[in-house]
Amino acid sequence: MRAVDIIMKKRDGSALSRSEIGFFISGVTAGTLPDYQVSALLMAILICGMSTEETAWLTEAMVDSGIRVDLDDIDGIKVDKHSTGGVGDKTSLVLAPLAAACGVPVPMMSGRGLGHTGGTLDKLESIPGFRVNLSLEEMRTALAAVGCAMIGQTAQIAPADKKLYALRDVTGTVESIPLISASIMSKKIAEGIDALVLDVKTGNGAFMKTEANSRKLAESLVSIGNASGVKTEALITAMDAPLGRAVGNALEVIESIDILKGQGSPDLVDVSVELTARMLVMGKIADSRPSAERLVRGAIASGAGLERFRRIIEMQGGDPHIVDDYRRLPSAAERHLLRADATGYLTHLDAELVGRASVVLGAGRDRVEDPVDHAVGIMVMAKPGDQVCAGDAILELHYRDTATRDRALELAHRSFAIGEQRPAVRPVILGEVH
Amino acid sequence: MRAVDIIMKKRDGSALSRSEIGFFISGVTAGTLPDYQVSALLMAILICGMSTEETAWLTEAMVDSGIRVDLDDIDGIKVDKHSTGGVGDKTSLVLAPLAAACGVPVPMMSGRGLGHTGGTLDKLESIPGFRVNLSLEEMRTALAAVGCAMIGQTAQIAPADKKLYALRDVTGTVESIPLISASIMSKKIAEGIDALVLDVKTGNGAFMKTEANSRKLAESLVSIGNASGVKTEALITAMDAPLGRAVGNALEVIESIDILKGQGSPDLVDVSVELTARMLVMGKIADSRPSAERLVRGAIASGAGLERFRRIIEMQGGDPHIVDDYRRLPSAAERHLLRADATGYLTHLDAELVGRASVVLGAGRDRVEDPVDHAVGIMVMAKPGDQVCAGDAILELHYRDTATRDRALELAHRSFAIGEQRPAVRPVILGEVH
Repeated sequence: MRAVDIIMKKRDGSALSRSEIGFFISGVTAGTLPDYQVSALLMAILICGMSTEETAWLTEAMVDSGIRVDLDDIDGIKVDKHSTGGVGDKTSLVLAPLAAACGVPVPMMSGRGLGHTGGTLDKLESIPGFRVNLSLEEMRTALAAVGCAMIGQTAQIAPADKKLYALRDVTGTVESIPLISASIMSKKIAEGIDALVLDVKTGNGAFMKTEANSRKLAESLVSIGNASGVKTEALITAMDAPLGRAVGNALEVIESIDILKGQGSPDLVDVSVELTARMLVMGKIADSRPSAERLVRGAIASGAGLERFRRIIEMQGGDPHIVDDYRRLPSAAERHLLRADATGYLTHLDAELVGRASVVLGAGRDRVEDPVDHAVGIMVMAKPGDQVCAGDAILELHYRDTATRDRALELAHRSFAIGEQRPAVRPVILGEVH
Repeated sequence: MRAVDIIMKKRDGSALSRSEIGFFISGVTAGTLPDYQVSALLMAILICGMSTEETAWLTEAMVDSGIRVDLDDIDGIKVDKHSTGGVGDKTSLVLAPLAAACGVPVPMMSGRGLGHTGGTLDKLESIPGFRVNLSLEEMRTALAAVGCAMIGQTAQIAPADKKLYALRDVTGTVESIPLISASIMSKKIAEGIDALVLDVKTGNGAFMKTEANSRKLAESLVSIGNASGVKTEALITAMDAPLGRAVGNALEVIESIDILKGQGSPDLVDVSVELTARMLVMGKIADSRPSAERLVRGAIASGAGLERFRRIIEMQGGDPHIVDDYRRLPSAAERHLLRADATGYLTHLDAELVGRASVVLGAGRDRVEDPVDHAVGIMVMAKPGDQVCAGDAILELHYRDTATRDRALELAHRSFAIGEQRPAVRPVILGEVH
């Protein structure tokens, strides 16, 4: 088998065989295929596409590039959740303790922020002492003790994906539904879960800008998961404006804890409860969506979710007292308020621009190797559809120095608009795929 | 300007600007663009195509990656010929001396054989002592003295093409009309000629298998040449069966000399005379095709072409006595005749398979760095349309050892068929583009 023949076959619009896809991924994993052949094939796949069958084989080959974690010794139906990435999306920090408190084992492997979107690992690391790099053995211990572990992807999980992603990022081959699907699902299948709830974002702050493309991606992900023995379903949710009120790592931890305390922005509460309820049904803790939702809202009201988050933090080496005392979290001393210059309605608040402004402040990164500043970020003081008066605060920037503040303000100023008519704001939960 | 943005622009089907194409080729030439970005862009170009304007800019950028030879101090209209590559295509060896003998200065830069197709430089090097690596100064001297120089491409000519071609060969990005056009024409424009006759081959032994694609390529080449100030026209010629009788380096030199002596296969004579006549018209030596053809046939009949070839060989350090004594050329001692196993008509003789069989014997190469054996090859004893009796020779293999002979025979046996009906054989010259 020659790489160039596989490249030409895909280039000419044909479907690749299972063994051709296996040859390709083995070569990527072993480092025997030169990058220039890999990137040529990636481009041919991006433009010519892949069938459902090819995408499943690609996922399978990527799973087989590393280990498949065996969690059979942990009782219960293990359920994880994955989001395709958004701005202010801290639902993982809310739903993992809630689901665990309700009895669903949650072995959660998350990623870091990149570009304008945040990442669960960065948010968790704003908690002093919190370790996300647990070994698989430590993960098992945490799961047995507190029903949840929130960790990063280990090097043994789908190593081919890591190599492919680094190349896709610099060769214009990121935006491909088959490649995105195989990347996401190979890692989820390898982590040893029984079921998965996906949150596929759509809108200007999401990777997929249109609902049609988001639905296609969701269908691709769900079909791969189910074909691989991981029961999978997906919500399609709006990412037009930031989710909730906080954008930035420690700020998002605080907002997550507020939700677990029964306070917080309805859009964020609704998505978090919906995702958790689905995890409970998939985990056979509840036999219907309505009864699952009652359990989840009960775990908030009783404080069981909050208590579980405290135990998770402690289990992973973090300071559990942050739950009661937010001053223990990193915080930036300087604040700047962006105010409405007219009276009317906030007609839109652009998630991508707010996300990019928070990256400029230091809350995110443009390159994988960059560090993040856990303290800085942006608080959303008004949401689209809200009535505002001239002078009302729209955004509050938490910053370190005036130079980054001024660069962030250029983006932040362009991120919102005020109009005379009340805007039509679409609901956050737009659809589902299962 | 970022390479990844240029890649995504082409990937999404947009036309690149002159400065984007310039940035890309500068990066290739300087080695600052990583191969994986170059190959991703090449694949996007292959699949999404390039407009006539983009192809012209690409060619221009590739010319500018090296020097543009100035031949203004050589009198006359300098005319070269280029073939897209075939099997048994030795027309360059016939037409260069003929055109020079008729008064057209011919600064010819040729290539080597690759895959099943032969190359002029390899054929010339089968002449003992013949040097193809003349400096540009030696090329000028030869042009002034004998009106012709037959040399290889120097490193100063379109260096970007050399790098791109090496990458295209291993990334499945060869078969693209814009990329082929820019590759061919950048080298021809850079060599300092005034006019160019192209021989675009079509058929199973050619790079372009269909006449429609060959015409598209011819149109692309002609339009780039004319836009760059090199008057260009193209013939489209059939490459279904080998051209002439000989396939292999020294064997083809002998056949070329035979043609200059007024002997030889009509298909080869017709194409050679047609191409030379066009060179005479473009070089303003003749004012019409018919008068040009009379001059060319006259130069054969008078022996002026043969005499000029002798002087060219001597000028470039070769042994001129080979013209009179073929025993001075390399020759393989062993012969094997493939015979007809039935009586009827030779219905076809597959150029690509004959070419591949001769590569197996050692006459060609699969990789640029491989050496060739000038002595070996295949003589075509019957041409498609010929009547044959069972036992008549069809092919004669000139070989060194029985192992390669046997491997070549496997291909050679599949290369021809004998049927009861006289086949329809299409003419060699199929069309023209100017």
